[in-house]
Amino acid sequence: MTTQDFTKQKLWGGRFTGETDPLMHQYNQSLSYDKRLYAADIQGSKAYAQALSGIGILTKEEANQIAAGLDKVGEEWKSGTFAIHPQDEDIHTANERRLTEIIGSVAGKLHTGRSRNDQVVTDVRLWLVEQTALVEGYLKDLIGVISSRAQNEIEVLMPGYTHLQPAQPIRWSHWLCSHAFSFAADLDRLRGLIPRLNKSPLGCGALAGHPFSIDRATLAKNLNFSGVIENSMNGVADRDFIVEWLMWATLTLTHMSRFAEDLIIYSTSEFGFVTASDAYSTGSSIMPQKKNPDSLELLRGKSGRIFGQMTGFLMSLKGLPSTYNKDLQEDKEPLFDCVDSMKASLQIATGVISTLNIHPEQMKKSLGMDMLATDLADYLVRKGVPFRETHHISGRCVAFAEQNKIQLSDISLEQLQQIDARFTQDVMDVWNFEASVDRRNAIGGTARSAVEEQIRTLQALL
Amino acid sequence: MTTQDFTKQKLWGGRFTGETDPLMHQYNQSLSYDKRLYAADIQGSKAYAQALSGIGILTKEEANQIAAGLDKVGEEWKSGTFAIHPQDEDIHTANERRLTEIIGSVAGKLHTGRSRNDQVVTDVRLWLVEQTALVEGYLKDLIGVISSRAQNEIEVLMPGYTHLQPAQPIRWSHWLCSHAFSFAADLDRLRGLIPRLNKSPLGCGALAGHPFSIDRATLAKNLNFSGVIENSMNGVADRDFIVEWLMWATLTLTHMSRFAEDLIIYSTSEFGFVTASDAYSTGSSIMPQKKNPDSLELLRGKSGRIFGQMTGFLMSLKGLPSTYNKDLQEDKEPLFDCVDSMKASLQIATGVISTLNIHPEQMKKSLGMDMLATDLADYLVRKGVPFRETHHISGRCVAFAEQNKIQLSDISLEQLQQIDARFTQDVMDVWNFEASVDRRNAIGGTARSAVEEQIRTLQALL
Amino acid sequence: MTTQDFTKQKLWGGRFTGETDPLMHQYNQSLSYDKRLYAADIQGSKAYAQALSGIGILTKEEANQIAAGLDKVGEEWKSGTFAIHPQDEDIHTANERRLTEIIGSVAGKLHTGRSRNDQVVTDVRLWLVEQTALVEGYLKDLIGVISSRAQNEIEVLMPGYTHLQPAQPIRWSHWLCSHAFSFAADLDRLRGLIPRLNKSPLGCGALAGHPFSIDRATLAKNLNFSGVIENSMNGVADRDFIVEWLMWATLTLTHMSRFAEDLIIYSTSEFGFVTASDAYSTGSSIMPQKKNPDSLELLRGKSGRIFGQMTGFLMSLKGLPSTYNKDLQEDKEPLFDCVDSMKASLQIATGVISTLNIHPEQMKKSLGMDMLATDLADYLVRKGVPFRETHHISGRCVAFAEQNKIQLSDISLEQLQQIDARFTQDVMDVWNFEASVDRRNAIGGTARSAVEEQIRTLQALL
Amino acid sequence: MTTQDFTKQKLWGGRFTGETDPLMHQYNQSLSYDKRLYAADIQGSKAYAQALSGIGILTKEEANQIAAGLDKVGEEWKSGTFAIHPQDEDIHTANERRLTEIIGSVAGKLHTGRSRNDQVVTDVRLWLVEQTALVEGYLKDLIGVISSRAQNEIEVLMPGYTHLQPAQPIRWSHWLCSHAFSFAADLDRLRGLIPRLNKSPLGCGALAGHPFSIDRATLAKNLNFSGVIENSMNGVADRDFIVEWLMWATLTLTHMSRFAEDLIIYSTSEFGFVTASDAYSTGSSIMPQKKNPDSLELLRGKSGRIFGQMTGFLMSLKGLPSTYNKDLQEDKEPLFDCVDSMKASLQIATGVISTLNIHPEQMKKSLGMDMLATDLADYLVRKGVPFRETHHISGRCVAFAEQNKIQLSDISLEQLQQIDARFTQDVMDVWNFEASVDRRNAIGGTARSAVEEQIRTLQALL
Repeated sequence: MTTQDFTKQKLWGGRFTGETDPLMHQYNQSLSYDKRLYAADIQGSKAYAQALSGIGILTKEEANQIAAGLDKVGEEWKSGTFAIHPQDEDIHTANERRLTEIIGSVAGKLHTGRSRNDQVVTDVRLWLVEQTALVEGYLKDLIGVISSRAQNEIEVLMPGYTHLQPAQPIRWSHWLCSHAFSFAADLDRLRGLIPRLNKSPLGCGALAGHPFSIDRATLAKNLNFSGVIENSMNGVADRDFIVEWLMWATLTLTHMSRFAEDLIIYSTSEFGFVTASDAYSTGSSIMPQKKNPDSLELLRGKSGRIFGQMTGFLMSLKGLPSTYNKDLQEDKEPLFDCVDSMKASLQIATGVISTLNIHPEQMKKSLGMDMLATDLADYLVRKGVPFRETHHISGRCVAFAEQNKIQLSDISLEQLQQIDARFTQDVMDVWNFEASVDRRNAIGGTARSAVEEQIRTLQALL
Repeated sequence: MTTQDFTKQKLWGGRFTGETDPLMHQYNQSLSYDKRLYAADIQGSKAYAQALSGIGILTKEEANQIAAGLDKVGEEWKSGTFAIHPQDEDIHTANERRLTEIIGSVAGKLHTGRSRNDQVVTDVRLWLVEQTALVEGYLKDLIGVISSRAQNEIEVLMPGYTHLQPAQPIRWSHWLCSHAFSFAADLDRLRGLIPRLNKSPLGCGALAGHPFSIDRATLAKNLNFSGVIENSMNGVADRDFIVEWLMWATLTLTHMSRFAEDLIIYSTSEFGFVTASDAYSTGSSIMPQKKNPDSLELLRGKSGRIFGQMTGFLMSLKGLPSTYNKDLQEDKEPLFDCVDSMKASLQIATGVISTLNIHPEQMKKSLGMDMLATDLADYLVRKGVPFRETHHISGRCVAFAEQNKIQLSDISLEQLQQIDARFTQDVMDVWNFEASVDRRNAIGGTARSAVEEQIRTLQALL
Repeated sequence: MTTQDFTKQKLWGGRFTGETDPLMHQYNQSLSYDKRLYAADIQGSKAYAQALSGIGILTKEEANQIAAGLDKVGEEWKSGTFAIHPQDEDIHTANERRLTEIIGSVAGKLHTGRSRNDQVVTDVRLWLVEQTALVEGYLKDLIGVISSRAQNEIEVLMPGYTHLQPAQPIRWSHWLCSHAFSFAADLDRLRGLIPRLNKSPLGCGALAGHPFSIDRATLAKNLNFSGVIENSMNGVADRDFIVEWLMWATLTLTHMSRFAEDLIIYSTSEFGFVTASDAYSTGSSIMPQKKNPDSLELLRGKSGRIFGQMTGFLMSLKGLPSTYNKDLQEDKEPLFDCVDSMKASLQIATGVISTLNIHPEQMKKSLGMDMLATDLADYLVRKGVPFRETHHISGRCVAFAEQNKIQLSDISLEQLQQIDARFTQDVMDVWNFEASVDRRNAIGGTARSAVEEQIRTLQALL
Repeated sequence: MTTQDFTKQKLWGGRFTGETDPLMHQYNQSLSYDKRLYAADIQGSKAYAQALSGIGILTKEEANQIAAGLDKVGEEWKSGTFAIHPQDEDIHTANERRLTEIIGSVAGKLHTGRSRNDQVVTDVRLWLVEQTALVEGYLKDLIGVISSRAQNEIEVLMPGYTHLQPAQPIRWSHWLCSHAFSFAADLDRLRGLIPRLNKSPLGCGALAGHPFSIDRATLAKNLNFSGVIENSMNGVADRDFIVEWLMWATLTLTHMSRFAEDLIIYSTSEFGFVTASDAYSTGSSIMPQKKNPDSLELLRGKSGRIFGQMTGFLMSLKGLPSTYNKDLQEDKEPLFDCVDSMKASLQIATGVISTLNIHPEQMKKSLGMDMLATDLADYLVRKGVPFRETHHISGRCVAFAEQNKIQLSDISLEQLQQIDARFTQDVMDVWNFEASVDRRNAIGGTARSAVEEQIRTLQALL
């Protein structure tokens, strides 16, 4: 049996003998998810028709016919009456098919000089620019809510931790701001990626550019792009704008995971600093006493989901030959889900933080005098003793208190002086959490003035 | 204003003042995707009701009532008549709610000693065991198709490459088998994970175990599990079975990406060794001459998608506290999509390979005499010359041919003897591709006998 | 200027005009890290020489000469006297170069029919089999230490959490076992990957197999492999054994990250359940009172490092053409670091857990009567009330206690009966943590008997 | 036996009974790799001493003493004479220890108000700013080399591919520029991250800020930072600058992987478009004829390594509580290796491309007339036929040529007219590759003018 015979016989399974494998149609199609690009696709096509008329491929009238037809297609999508045909592969072919049904063969002029390769990235870029503005708004809401709370609750003190061990007293507002500045950096990065995202690939054709000298610059301007992609092969191959967005979202949700982690720990009955409001908590199907901070756990968990979209798409990109390869179809589902998840997560986070109940008394109870050991060392620094030495002296005081099972502040002046003779009466002023936080008044510190400066900085970004 | 007042006022946004944030309901619910577990959920509940009757929590009659009610719920799902209520959170609460509507308050006994924590992993494990059997079947189909082609086309020779540079002649079947053995290892790994997957967490309760001495072993047996999870906290926390499956799928599709890469390169017009059948190719919207191997590119690209699911879920798991945390809800969507993608990808790969057209003449044309340079060196080895020396001699022959722009086989005996006196007339026997591949008859080599042995090994796995 | 001239002129930088770019040598070489394979490389070569003598390529005497020379090379590595030459590219060429210096040109026969492609994977597999045995030992030590503590401290009760909120009382030993079972699954997986790892690629040659009919099976047996790779192209291309090991390590350290997370939280001053011993804690350069559980944080953090090695190497593999490509050189550094990190991490974890100080009184203090709310519901279940109803009744009791700011157990019988008439005097027996944990005596529960069964299961694995 | 006794006995292994576990020291230390920060550490300390003198903690003289001592420490590192002590944990403690030995107890004043938490990120940021400038230079070299070649070789035509199938003719320079624009976007992104990287955390202390009102703004300025981190907790916790750099490098090497992939395929004997120069190629230990493009494969493979560093570090970050946790120590090794790998990879890429041999004749041979099928369709578009129709007509011509086994351009006018009557004599002008590429003269196209515009744009970035 020759090879020819072999492949003709197609021994394995009748389903592959037909002209097309229905599973292959399903595997290959993207309409089930890229239909959400319908408005962008129509917007792009209308502008393209106008540009084609600019170079004489279309008459004014033809361009108008096409524009009117496209508007009708868009209305069908909007009203839910667009009828998908089994053979529609993607939003581009579906729209052109429907346009042809509506306006006839002149529709066939629309694709002149254009390829789905430049069309699809035009659509995704248009859509993503719009979505980015929404996301930017939600991010600003979150920063706004955090900084408002920081202003309102600036009096509240709490323990500051390193290694999750009590370190130094801080303001609750200082903690709030510390996370807000991470989100502020995310805002900065989001704004920074827009110029690269908002460039037009339209007119790049399949890979080699446009054969009818289309005016890409004007076309881009009409679509509110801020510029054009400078090389046609790059234009159809490049998915940096998606990678950047996924990376942006990943880092933002990594910040969210740290924010949520703190709040989940602060919500434990052992810490007791905060309680998520009922609207963002759930109960248990078996344990009647339970109230769980599900919203915070979901926010923390989503960091994995988004990260997976970013890493997965990079894997798909790795080692691809130039220009368009079908592997690139794997760009849309992660992007769409990522954008949806970011919009929901930012809003949920805003909701959680805006309704969070805090328990300042409980925070205060967690403040131990040990957390002023550095202040004790600093006290001697002010008397000229080198810090490295005062650190050891303070350490001996901590050990003395531990051995005698007393608070650090309960060591008497005499006992302190036995440890180091340079202690004098004013050492007792050290035992003051308010004073401790206000002493840190350099930029970025816990002093009231410094925290208020931070709040002003944050609010100026919004 | 006190903190209390502050949170009461909830300054930021009216949408958070109500009892529940509708977006939070959406963010928190899982029914939209976990409803596909309905059959497993009902199967698990029926077995659980039986077990409860075994320990006297339910009477026989109550157990029967519940079983009958559950069957009715299952039928509603199957026939598409199950009416989802807005407040249904997940498949477990939806099914219990409906059961209660059907059979009344006795339904309230079903959840005794059970928590959604053990229920959900029971469901997912039951479902995944079933899916794994399907996937195993598709994987066997793929290996079967490859090995059948290998048997049928064993005469076909082609260049073997390292670094994508011509290396030594091989059989096309040898290449086929090289990939089939990767898939065979995947089959072995898939079978290896089943014993860990197929263990029952049912009876672990919320985290601490079952308070009514339920007979977990019998319950597990009735659900066709091969054993029980030995620690209740581990039972509700553990998602290893999902991670393992995602890792398995990742490695399998990494193999697929290499398989597809080879075929995509062999499909180029420059190589011309193979052509994907029409059923697995597509054209271009702009370039009339195009026929692109989209199926292979999609197979290659899916490796990223699956990899992203695996890495994303690991990220969600990292650093989670013990037992159940809501972050774990991020397990189902990647798993479901992964299983769907694997089933489709394995079938598509089987379809592509079963209908692939090969071009043996073109493969032969790509075989250059240079690829026998090792055989030339080996010829002198047989005369007792150390290989390191024969390697250099053969290298000089290659250089001589290059300089004289002739084929290696066109160097005359005299010329060869000038390079090394030990060449004799029989050196001309070296220039035979068939002989070269058949000389490699040790296990795993390209000789016909060795390849047939490989095919037998592969087919014994199916 | 023609292209030819252009490339001859090599305008950009004199450093590229020479025969070799020294940076390229550095970029290309692997000796700086693969020298740790020296013993495996020598072991493999000795066995290979013996096999070559079996097929007449080497005389007995030559084989002996080579073996003796290789032993000498090995001794030089061992004693640190091996002198690396600048042109040594990798351990294979370094060893052969040195062997030639020691025994002369007969060394040139050793590489007959062998390629670095099969040699390097033989070396890595030999090395990894040995390392895996060490790692298995360390993992068993860890499980051993945890289960010993579990046995010794079985009386200690603590709160069990879900969502990090108090759920139900458990034994400290039950918590210990819950993590030990994750590590036990890791042990099972590690043992499961050995058969695939421990197979010999030697004799696969460059890609096409062995041209001198070497006896691969015997050769494999002499190297203590349990079998041979069945296809030569697969033998040189396959890095599954590395991926599997990296995946294994990733999941193991993901478990470790959860284990460490619990302990870090339990180490906070707010929880106060455990304290890491001094040997595994560190202080602060600025805060004298600090004692931080650095060891646990490092264990948690390493999960990222290993995960990165796994994901990175998969990325390198993705989409590679068949057989050997130089990209595969990226396999060794992650593997080596992963193995080192796993050995250290398992030992550190064993050290931490073996010296951990626990504070049972503090654990007891954290047990709230609320955590018996499920037991209260179960009490009524025993009286025949459907669980769904008892759940609501118990919920009302919890609310009543909250409103009256009393403990759940402080509600009087009369008050309970006002909530539900079915409460009788024996309800007071519910308020007993010991009884609660011992009631959960089904397999995997918190009862003493059930935990002891778990410990026996764990210890049987060691 | 009480728990107390239990932990005192430390049953498992004598090695944990001592004060410190030597393996823990090794696991915990960072000096073995962070010593490369020595110069940054000294630079930071000198500026800090000056700032301390500004607020009266140090006298001028003390500040000078410290500066002189630090210079001496720096010289010891530079000259390789710095003697590391076994107890040195990291570069910070090593430098302070040595400083104390040199200048005595006044050294103990240097750490006043500073913590290793702010010190280490100051060091890493200083170091990374410097390295980023180097990397930017290497990236500019690469773009420079590519664009120079593009200018020099603008006459060379080659096939352009989509899906790796012949699509349309392009200029070799157009292909070069397509990759150069990816690298140009990388350059833009690299420049964009510097403002966020180049901010000073110095003065943030352990977490709560500086207790002696240090002038952070001036201190930052003296270290050439462009600003200060605005919140002290954020300052010690934030590793965004490392994540951003790793993400930047990942995307850049993903571009490199696509660039290398193209070149590896173009280097095959079947394509034959390019040959890597000897300096960037290697041979085989067994196959005398081999010349492999190892450099390109290494460049492609490195994309995995860098990706793994990025993903691994994100995993380490995920879910960390606020401020400093020891997990953050996992930031330096991936960053250091990433920077080293990027510097080497960019230089190697520059070397490869600057010395690459191209084979224009071979490229020309691969240009098939089929690749002008779009131009044939466009020909009829110019006559007013809708593109969708011309696409089908051209498709019929392609099919006709295939059936008759002739080139598309060999179809006679008569035959063409039988397919469509609108073909006239001038259709024969279509069969001209030069004309085809030059017709695409819109921005970003393959026309000579359009490519030269691209080259100018690229060179303006350098």
